[in-house]
Amino acid sequence: MLNLPANFETYAEARKSGFMKMKEIKDNGGRIVGVYCSFVPQELLMAAGAAAAPLCASSDEPIPAAETKLPRNLCPLIKASYGFALTDTCPYFYFSDFIVGETTCDGKRKMFELMNELKETYVMQLPHSRDDAALRSWTEEVIRLKEKLEDFYHITITEEDIRDAIRLKNHERRAMLGFLELGKLNPAPISGYEMGTRLDGLGFNFNLEERIAIIEERTKEVLTDWETNYKGKASDRPRLLITGCPNSGVRDKIIKTVEELGADVVAFDCCNGTREKVEPVDENMPIYDALAKKYLNINCSVMSPNNSRMQYIDEMIDEYQVDGVIEIILQACHTYNIESHYVKQTVTNKGKSYLMIETDYSQADKGQIRTRLEAFLETLEK
Amino acid sequence: MLNLPANFETYAEARKSGFMKMKEIKDNGGRIVGVYCSFVPQELLMAAGAAAAPLCASSDEPIPAAETKLPRNLCPLIKASYGFALTDTCPYFYFSDFIVGETTCDGKRKMFELMNELKETYVMQLPHSRDDAALRSWTEEVIRLKEKLEDFYHITITEEDIRDAIRLKNHERRAMLGFLELGKLNPAPISGYEMGTRLDGLGFNFNLEERIAIIEERTKEVLTDWETNYKGKASDRPRLLITGCPNSGVRDKIIKTVEELGADVVAFDCCNGTREKVEPVDENMPIYDALAKKYLNINCSVMSPNNSRMQYIDEMIDEYQVDGVIEIILQACHTYNIESHYVKQTVTNKGKSYLMIETDYSQADKGQIRTRLEAFLETLEK
Repeated sequence: MLNLPANFETYAEARKSGFMKMKEIKDNGGRIVGVYCSFVPQELLMAAGAAAAPLCASSDEPIPAAETKLPRNLCPLIKASYGFALTDTCPYFYFSDFIVGETTCDGKRKMFELMNELKETYVMQLPHSRDDAALRSWTEEVIRLKEKLEDFYHITITEEDIRDAIRLKNHERRAMLGFLELGKLNPAPISGYEMGTRLDGLGFNFNLEERIAIIEERTKEVLTDWETNYKGKASDRPRLLITGCPNSGVRDKIIKTVEELGADVVAFDCCNGTREKVEPVDENMPIYDALAKKYLNINCSVMSPNNSRMQYIDEMIDEYQVDGVIEIILQACHTYNIESHYVKQTVTNKGKSYLMIETDYSQADKGQIRTRLEAFLETLEK
Repeated sequence: MLNLPANFETYAEARKSGFMKMKEIKDNGGRIVGVYCSFVPQELLMAAGAAAAPLCASSDEPIPAAETKLPRNLCPLIKASYGFALTDTCPYFYFSDFIVGETTCDGKRKMFELMNELKETYVMQLPHSRDDAALRSWTEEVIRLKEKLEDFYHITITEEDIRDAIRLKNHERRAMLGFLELGKLNPAPISGYEMGTRLDGLGFNFNLEERIAIIEERTKEVLTDWETNYKGKASDRPRLLITGCPNSGVRDKIIKTVEELGADVVAFDCCNGTREKVEPVDENMPIYDALAKKYLNINCSVMSPNNSRMQYIDEMIDEYQVDGVIEIILQACHTYNIESHYVKQTVTNKGKSYLMIETDYSQADKGQIRTRLEAFLETLEK
């Protein structure tokens, strides 16, 4: 059964309590930049003394408003994000000084044109390949963002500012990764639902040192609990890897449900999982080259080809002793949807079960998803 | 009423008769490169002595096969193109030595990964912006394609080869544009259905001089007919501009139908219309810069922002004396679908009527489209 600690803070609570922190930042003359994607090098924002407000929306609520301007058959994350902006119902968007978008996918790229009418939206040109030309052009983009921040805030960002930010962000990555790697323990020491919720929730704590302390503390707590109460006690619950699109908006109807049905979600290959965290920024390289190299290596399906994601999933299946893989596809996300062909191949080649769920933020398919998850778990009976 | 000349060759016939020409090219040791998009600089293929086989598919037939590997909610053009390749039922794909793809949209970019398993698919990295950095990177891509052709065929392509190709292709552009600009005449001298069909059909004639001669001859013929029989005779048929996605696969159910219903399709802002033809390659610039500049300026919705398309549509409405605009959106084409927001704005700001039809290659919505077209024409009654 899904076992959440008594003091467990939900994502909604974390998001809500973040509002006050954000208001405090603004009241003290602080800087806030809205971001939508892991590809935006947060080290530059940190070096500019700006908090990064995570704006990827996970609520169904503002979608009808968004659909007055955007097509219906577009990814719910994009529609919800634009919908919050359009209806001015997201304090994070409201408090952001400007927005940094990126050309990850067609939908976001074109949505940012409309968003720019509501608030200045600066778009980073993300290449979709990983050769030398792409790296050169992405390095230029990284430098351009630094210059944009300098222009916007009338400041000078020094190399030392960036180096400090790189070190701190790398520390945060290690801490988050340490928490996520608890999933490697067998039996599973913590629910996957809690893992995802905590990490997403911490995105609304704009003090990185505090963020690190909280997650390191929780990691230690879980580990002690496991050593004392679970170590050496075999579990027959199947162990699952979640992969695919951002899952915050469908976490309850998929991840919570599958854990309630008797499985353990132990691993996450997604943007709120290990994907961005496995590779730190190289602290010994020239800073812009190091940032460009790190961020271009994020295994998002927008990269073509994206073989390293397949290799990573292959390794995760072994390291986390995974029995089955659930791929979450947000509706109309072409890149993940097409790439799922290779994910399925990778998973089944290892003799593991694979389930792809294409869904959106509505509750319409909740029952159907539950039924499919039940059927999937039956194929995994150990 | 739709009035087609007696000797009118359908698109299917043109495509079929092209098969024999293509086989002849191959039997004589000729070179053929498969292409999917206007962004591929055909001058380089011509300079390599290779015919460009147009592979964008417009048939519903191979889609079920494609859907065994690709998601269902993907653009029909992408699915059909991949489906032909997968089922090996397109002689043009079969005879192509290799394929040149491009990173226009998410769907094509990721589909090309799967296509590469069937036949070598070389992908050009198309930037989606139009600043200096994009132009530099696209110029490099143009040079890379030249080098790819040299490597593949073990040949050397000289600057003079490319200059000759540029001159010939510019001549072809002028000829095609001259034909399309017949639509500026009032009353309309030729059906839009014929215009589109002829231009697409000529893509399967691999002799450019022949292509030019045929279209110049037909232009002259139509013009003479108009001067003799129609000039000065007012028409009350509404004049329409077709814009949006490639329309070959839906030409019958939209363009033919609306002309049968009593309108004249006089202008085309689409990749088989004037879009690629309005700007020639500058014959006085250094060749790679000239090619890069020309091709980056194609007003496809993959460009962001794409203001020049709005300006072009605005001008076309005046120049072709357009009463209404029909935008064709192929299902799940996010870039055109989102950009339609601005197209609608542009059209209605000029006091003209706008209709957006989202469709695919099936016949399922044929009746519904006819009804919508009828209703649209009623709003245009002069």
